[in-house]
Amino acid sequence: MKEVVIGFLGCGNVGGGVWELLHGFAPEIAHRDHVAIRVKKVLVRSLDKARSCSVAPEVLTTNPADILEDPEITLVAEFMGGEQPATDYLLAALRQGKTVVTANKVAVALNWHRLQEEAQRHHAGLYYEASVCGAIPIISTLMSPLQANRIGQLMGIINGTTNYILSRMYEHGEDYSAVLADAQRLGLAEPDPANDVEGMDAAYKLSIMASLAFHARVPYSKVYREGITHVTAMDIAMGKEMGYVLKLLAIAKREGNTIEVRVHPTFIRERHPLAQVNGSFNAVYLFGHACKEMMLQGRGAGDMPTASAVVGDILHAATVDAHVHPSFANTADADASLTFTDDWHSSFFIRLSASDTPGVLAEIAGGLAKENVSIATMMQKGAVESGRVPLIFITHAASEKAMQKALSRLNPEVARLESVIRVEE
Amino acid sequence: MKEVVIGFLGCGNVGGGVWELLHGFAPEIAHRDHVAIRVKKVLVRSLDKARSCSVAPEVLTTNPADILEDPEITLVAEFMGGEQPATDYLLAALRQGKTVVTANKVAVALNWHRLQEEAQRHHAGLYYEASVCGAIPIISTLMSPLQANRIGQLMGIINGTTNYILSRMYEHGEDYSAVLADAQRLGLAEPDPANDVEGMDAAYKLSIMASLAFHARVPYSKVYREGITHVTAMDIAMGKEMGYVLKLLAIAKREGNTIEVRVHPTFIRERHPLAQVNGSFNAVYLFGHACKEMMLQGRGAGDMPTASAVVGDILHAATVDAHVHPSFANTADADASLTFTDDWHSSFFIRLSASDTPGVLAEIAGGLAKENVSIATMMQKGAVESGRVPLIFITHAASEKAMQKALSRLNPEVARLESVIRVEE
Repeated sequence: MKEVVIGFLGCGNVGGGVWELLHGFAPEIAHRDHVAIRVKKVLVRSLDKARSCSVAPEVLTTNPADILEDPEITLVAEFMGGEQPATDYLLAALRQGKTVVTANKVAVALNWHRLQEEAQRHHAGLYYEASVCGAIPIISTLMSPLQANRIGQLMGIINGTTNYILSRMYEHGEDYSAVLADAQRLGLAEPDPANDVEGMDAAYKLSIMASLAFHARVPYSKVYREGITHVTAMDIAMGKEMGYVLKLLAIAKREGNTIEVRVHPTFIRERHPLAQVNGSFNAVYLFGHACKEMMLQGRGAGDMPTASAVVGDILHAATVDAHVHPSFANTADADASLTFTDDWHSSFFIRLSASDTPGVLAEIAGGLAKENVSIATMMQKGAVESGRVPLIFITHAASEKAMQKALSRLNPEVARLESVIRVEE
Repeated sequence: MKEVVIGFLGCGNVGGGVWELLHGFAPEIAHRDHVAIRVKKVLVRSLDKARSCSVAPEVLTTNPADILEDPEITLVAEFMGGEQPATDYLLAALRQGKTVVTANKVAVALNWHRLQEEAQRHHAGLYYEASVCGAIPIISTLMSPLQANRIGQLMGIINGTTNYILSRMYEHGEDYSAVLADAQRLGLAEPDPANDVEGMDAAYKLSIMASLAFHARVPYSKVYREGITHVTAMDIAMGKEMGYVLKLLAIAKREGNTIEVRVHPTFIRERHPLAQVNGSFNAVYLFGHACKEMMLQGRGAGDMPTASAVVGDILHAATVDAHVHPSFANTADADASLTFTDDWHSSFFIRLSASDTPGVLAEIAGGLAKENVSIATMMQKGAVESGRVPLIFITHAASEKAMQKALSRLNPEVARLESVIRVEE
């Protein structure tokens, strides 16, 4: 029987889940795949910390060299998170010809080209299914069954924390700050929630998925990013009344050699498949020229779902004869033949506080029309207060820049801009 | 550049789609994967038939030996459908060491063990992503990213024709025969619809998916099968009123070494992810002990979605150094250590035409209770006609056999059984 000797870098929730899954499953793996898996060393920050998983104390080490320089260890599984020192450790492992399985989206999104270069040079494997959306098999699906597709569009709900917050705001009309505080109490949001609520987490994942979907490096720095911190219960309620659900969407579109990649709060129709994805679930919807519409949904985070992807990669790496890498030129920057646009087209939800006087509607519509923005739906909602009334518009598809220009020209005396939220129809 | 020379067996809709996809995509494939793909021969029944795809006439042949015995052809792609002669052709190709890519669920479901045996003996690849649910990557997902899971449950909407019919009956209250006739006119149902509406198509696919999910051969003959031909608009309307949607579900469950596999009309809650899958879409929902809930949905049929899966397999087969096969003992019959039960547990929707006299409800409930079937919900619906009234029950989970026994004991004078439909809560 083939033995695969593994070193863990990190042993938090995900590492503990991987340990439990590997050990609970070892007899089946040995029987089925004729592979015996042995975890020889586990790098931790402190030997004394209490751990919920059953990692044997004698395998713990605080010295990375015990893993990176041990020739018996042929596979390194990493769950430290963060760019450094994880990236340096992974590069060192690959230079020793060790295969890397990582759950670290930041390291992959920022240093993928360096990791892949070392992996190819040393004929080592580089696997990262767990780095994007936990158990959802989006990496392997993009890498293989969808290879024959020109993917024009990929949209995902790929951050569980923000989806939990927005789902509760939608269901119960709660305020952002109240739900966030509750999510923090429940352990569903970090004490410092910026990485989730500002969209960085989603942008790292989108950079990885879009690169695979478009067969071209889509750097993290090219992803437009807007978080959910300014979202109000009122906007969600107004959208709901008009048949829309608000989600933090990660969107990647390609037309010819022009690419747009963006993460921002987005209204979608309540019948869209993504609108049904609630709570901490994740989902990725895409459209390819041959496969047509497709959606994968599931648990995008959590120790066991992430461990499921890690161990899936470990077993795959242990049973193939040669490792396959994405076939595009994986460079630090995007390919020079590509254009990343920040002037995409979408519809817009606009909430204004307008003066309750004759001719106001005509003035607003006229201002938008000057920039070729036309109105699809208008709703006047609620009572007049201090001579002002809430007005909500949904526009037809318009250019982002034209829209921003039109909004900047609004006369606040006539109509004060309260909210502007993009809509994917 | 590596050249892969291919022979097609069959050139109907799917074959034509594969031809178009391969040729439209050839420059990208050559550039990206450094593989040149050439279709050398295409087996057809008649050389004279008009074809919508652009297959060059000089590659057409009516002689299978032109493909199966040509040593230059290293990969055979099959879209003939049906058990024979397809299976014999595929076996002959594998014996020549040719890799097989097939969209043929019948050949795989019935003769998988023979195909895999020849493939392994001759170090050839055997790929069949396209045989189950078109573009949906369920085969590759079960084969690799989910390997570290004990999958306890897999449920799918895996037949587009029946889902189209049931979706229309649900949305518009139409009758089965009217919608079927319309689907036939639209080309969404075959002139002889038995294969779809009697559940055979779904049972073939379930046999393949359940085998991969459970790492054990689940023969087609073990799949319990009940079609949608007896489904009435009234049952669908009554279920809808109670918050349920009717779907033809393919269900596979495993507990320890006991397996149940069944295809039948099933009520599910309208909030279940599968309830949102409408029209000709397919979806597979599953639960694994590590990945938890997961659902893959997309286009389960059609020339281009199926071609997407075929060409994905072709590119995969062309770029790997060694072919991977499922690691369970793939035999004609199920493993002796497994038990296939036909006494599963589910809830039931029961519609009765009951006598409108005092004590009837007590008599029915008493009869069910004798078999340990307890009632969760009861609805009396509509007016009394000829002294009889429609009664609908939804039970708590009960054993299939106990339920059948309880129903067989109903006194038709008191309560005539109109419908019984299983419910997955």
